[in-house]
Amino acid sequence: MTKIKVLEKPRLSKPLLLVGLPGVGNIGRVAVGYLVSELKAKKFAELHSKWFFPFVVLHDKSVASLLKNELYYYKGKKAGERDMIFLVGDCQSLSPQGHYEVIDVIMDFAEKLGVKEIITVGGLATGELDSAKGLIGAVSDEKVMKKYRKYKIDFNAGEKVGYIVGAAGLMLGIGKERGIEGLCLLGQTSGFPIVTDPKAAESALDVLVKMFGLKIDMGKLEKKVDEMEKFIKKVEGLQMKAVSELAKASKAPSSGEQLRYIG
Amino acid sequence: MTKIKVLEKPRLSKPLLLVGLPGVGNIGRVAVGYLVSELKAKKFAELHSKWFFPFVVLHDKSVASLLKNELYYYKGKKAGERDMIFLVGDCQSLSPQGHYEVIDVIMDFAEKLGVKEIITVGGLATGELDSAKGLIGAVSDEKVMKKYRKYKIDFNAGEKVGYIVGAAGLMLGIGKERGIEGLCLLGQTSGFPIVTDPKAAESALDVLVKMFGLKIDMGKLEKKVDEMEKFIKKVEGLQMKAVSELAKASKAPSSGEQLRYIG
Amino acid sequence: MTKIKVLEKPRLSKPLLLVGLPGVGNIGRVAVGYLVSELKAKKFAELHSKWFFPFVVLHDKSVASLLKNELYYYKGKKAGERDMIFLVGDCQSLSPQGHYEVIDVIMDFAEKLGVKEIITVGGLATGELDSAKGLIGAVSDEKVMKKYRKYKIDFNAGEKVGYIVGAAGLMLGIGKERGIEGLCLLGQTSGFPIVTDPKAAESALDVLVKMFGLKIDMGKLEKKVDEMEKFIKKVEGLQMKAVSELAKASKAPSSGEQLRYIG
Amino acid sequence: MTKIKVLEKPRLSKPLLLVGLPGVGNIGRVAVGYLVSELKAKKFAELHSKWFFPFVVLHDKSVASLLKNELYYYKGKKAGERDMIFLVGDCQSLSPQGHYEVIDVIMDFAEKLGVKEIITVGGLATGELDSAKGLIGAVSDEKVMKKYRKYKIDFNAGEKVGYIVGAAGLMLGIGKERGIEGLCLLGQTSGFPIVTDPKAAESALDVLVKMFGLKIDMGKLEKKVDEMEKFIKKVEGLQMKAVSELAKASKAPSSGEQLRYIG
Repeated sequence: MTKIKVLEKPRLSKPLLLVGLPGVGNIGRVAVGYLVSELKAKKFAELHSKWFFPFVVLHDKSVASLLKNELYYYKGKKAGERDMIFLVGDCQSLSPQGHYEVIDVIMDFAEKLGVKEIITVGGLATGELDSAKGLIGAVSDEKVMKKYRKYKIDFNAGEKVGYIVGAAGLMLGIGKERGIEGLCLLGQTSGFPIVTDPKAAESALDVLVKMFGLKIDMGKLEKKVDEMEKFIKKVEGLQMKAVSELAKASKAPSSGEQLRYIG
Repeated sequence: MTKIKVLEKPRLSKPLLLVGLPGVGNIGRVAVGYLVSELKAKKFAELHSKWFFPFVVLHDKSVASLLKNELYYYKGKKAGERDMIFLVGDCQSLSPQGHYEVIDVIMDFAEKLGVKEIITVGGLATGELDSAKGLIGAVSDEKVMKKYRKYKIDFNAGEKVGYIVGAAGLMLGIGKERGIEGLCLLGQTSGFPIVTDPKAAESALDVLVKMFGLKIDMGKLEKKVDEMEKFIKKVEGLQMKAVSELAKASKAPSSGEQLRYIG
Repeated sequence: MTKIKVLEKPRLSKPLLLVGLPGVGNIGRVAVGYLVSELKAKKFAELHSKWFFPFVVLHDKSVASLLKNELYYYKGKKAGERDMIFLVGDCQSLSPQGHYEVIDVIMDFAEKLGVKEIITVGGLATGELDSAKGLIGAVSDEKVMKKYRKYKIDFNAGEKVGYIVGAAGLMLGIGKERGIEGLCLLGQTSGFPIVTDPKAAESALDVLVKMFGLKIDMGKLEKKVDEMEKFIKKVEGLQMKAVSELAKASKAPSSGEQLRYIG
Repeated sequence: MTKIKVLEKPRLSKPLLLVGLPGVGNIGRVAVGYLVSELKAKKFAELHSKWFFPFVVLHDKSVASLLKNELYYYKGKKAGERDMIFLVGDCQSLSPQGHYEVIDVIMDFAEKLGVKEIITVGGLATGELDSAKGLIGAVSDEKVMKKYRKYKIDFNAGEKVGYIVGAAGLMLGIGKERGIEGLCLLGQTSGFPIVTDPKAAESALDVLVKMFGLKIDMGKLEKKVDEMEKFIKKVEGLQMKAVSELAKASKAPSSGEQLRYIG
């Protein structure tokens, strides 16, 4: 019940997998989503899972869709560009074992496509409204750090952060076990849960664009952020609501008829 | 451990699957349950699952039964009528992954019976005691909306609602992935959890009867609602009670002998 | 990871399965446990499961054992006696799906031994300290009720109770689906969780002894109850403690170093 | 999704498995970890599991790693020494069924290496700041108790403790079912969750060193404890944080836009 539906089988040369899922500040989701849209990357696969929240989202004109993660590809066209696969999505898994299972399925799929390198983009909640906007980096291996040092990434994550929760970190760890090189970029943001931080996403985007010699128009970022935020808020809001409903139910007095417990 | 017990293998021609499970206002359960009873639809299969609450319900004369979902069929007899399958039941799944797994089993089964079209009936809690009673609709595909537009369904669900939780929505989404056309009808109700809303169920029933050219006697609805509500309340009440017991246990002081934690 | 370890393969003729697991008032556990001991029934199988609480219990002399359910058999020796299998144990499952899975494994095993009839013994918490002590009964089928009517069992359970939670009920329901006749006997008790009710257990025992024409000495019941209660309290106490620890942890302020959430 | 990655296949003669995982006072983790380091035991396998917390830990220089358990071996070199396998790790499982599943995988692996004997080291929280420091012992079998009686272990655990939660106990119980002899040593500590107790670990270490005729330098213990504690605190702190985040979310008012529940 974690299935990837393949729409097209692209032929790619040593593609890099770039991952941006919803999370703190939605930095990864926004940065990678904007790249997909600006590069006109092509969707070629879709992932659904029983580990996602059990609801459908309604789009314009009341068309319903399951929650999903999506895979896009981009074939490097100009000099210096390389083939890339983008993983974006509506949500992460609901439970710990779900995280491991979904990422395992994605990694199996990525390996078949020849992926040997992965970059995940996430957020770091600093708890301060006015935090520095630099990117913090973590790696699967010291040699990856050397490769990307020139991009003004703060690689003192070990001291500053200590751990990375969820898909952005777990993909690095699971990839490493499979011999895939990994870099995780964390944009710093204040961290109030449902707030998308477009500034932090822009910082991440700037670095990614430089890393891969991409040319994109940053002018539409603000508009795009608005669109994406609306949708992500919807999903997050409902998940919170569901947790809250459950908590309320658990406090409900057994009013009315007095229920009797049997066993 | 999600098993369908088949009592009879009906031969049906392009059957529509109509789904009404317990939920907000129990609108789907009541509307579809009443159709089953008035059309004298025949039960042909029963589903049990480890994802349902682990208890038995006692009926008249103390006969115990597992919680179940039931499948009925009706062969269109008069001109304009079509073959239909009805899914009704005592409960939905307890956990997110349970929802996905149970619906997957149902969809496998429905596809084998030739189902290419599904309608689910649910409720929308407005939070207002005196809410408008129109039906809100969501679809798997724009063309489904066109097909049913004439039945006074409000298809601005995307704006008004945004998402549909549980089986009514998930069946639409999972069906869509399998190429099954889907419509979800949501009756509006105030939404206080354990209250069945017969008025909203009647509105849904009115639309369903028109859609499929059915002739049924609405006179017994009130009596039927009373019967069904009693049973649904029983199941819901116990589920709440169980959650509440757990919450109480978690607050219990380790009184009496002082327990010591070991690890 | 729900395994039955078979110590001996008894040859039994149409054995009845009699089930007494811990629950409200520990009525089933005590009544069936006392029968096992008085009849010198022989242990022939043991069940362990990942759905039980993850700890070992220490017996005299610090010998550790996994939580388990146990199966004993008794070959009817005197006129009027029949072959019986007894299921007793330390605990029930921790989770809803665990209940279904463990009972399914037990039922598969019982069917292979020729079981066509099952009696489960449980408790009903009335919430009143001074409640009537009669037994309440539920059945898989009306004909079972007729068979046992003469034993002063109150078969108005449908009205009085409505549902039976946990193994005592679920075994009836799952057995019914397999064509096994079932009776559930519920002793009435005040229902404060960790209290064993020896009076209610004695009432159940009286009925069981008459039903199967057994001759046992009731004189040692009190002593036996003390022994069993000590152990059951241990298991229950720790389960509560564990839930409580979790609740406390969830309220802990992120004191000391301020943790930062990352994703 | 509980996998053991084998780095080397050692040939061992009747190896003893010695287990020290994080837990109360981190006594087992520290005592066994120190042995591994002083004996220069060689790492030969690593275990990852979907039952561990879904994050990566960042080490020096921002290198990320999945949570893991590790297996080391030591070939007895001097007279009186025996071959040993050490199991240490970052964490235990998150859920009850995870405990059973992970330990089952470890036991399968250990049996293939010829293990017939296991010693687990854990802690007992006494709730008193100034508690006696003696070791409490539990066994799989009475004969094990006789074997180790001379080492001043208090074998009245049955009365004093009653049960052992988590891997230290469960390994004894699961091992016993497989015919593996087991001893569990519990160091007594005050028991405030995130505090490592080096004194209690030293007591356990003293006994282990005598048992197996090992010669190690205890002088570096304090420094080693500091190192280990830092890391264990990191993992524990985040697990608490995560539970606390969830609790907060469940109390969040559905502020801002009023969410509506649908089903």
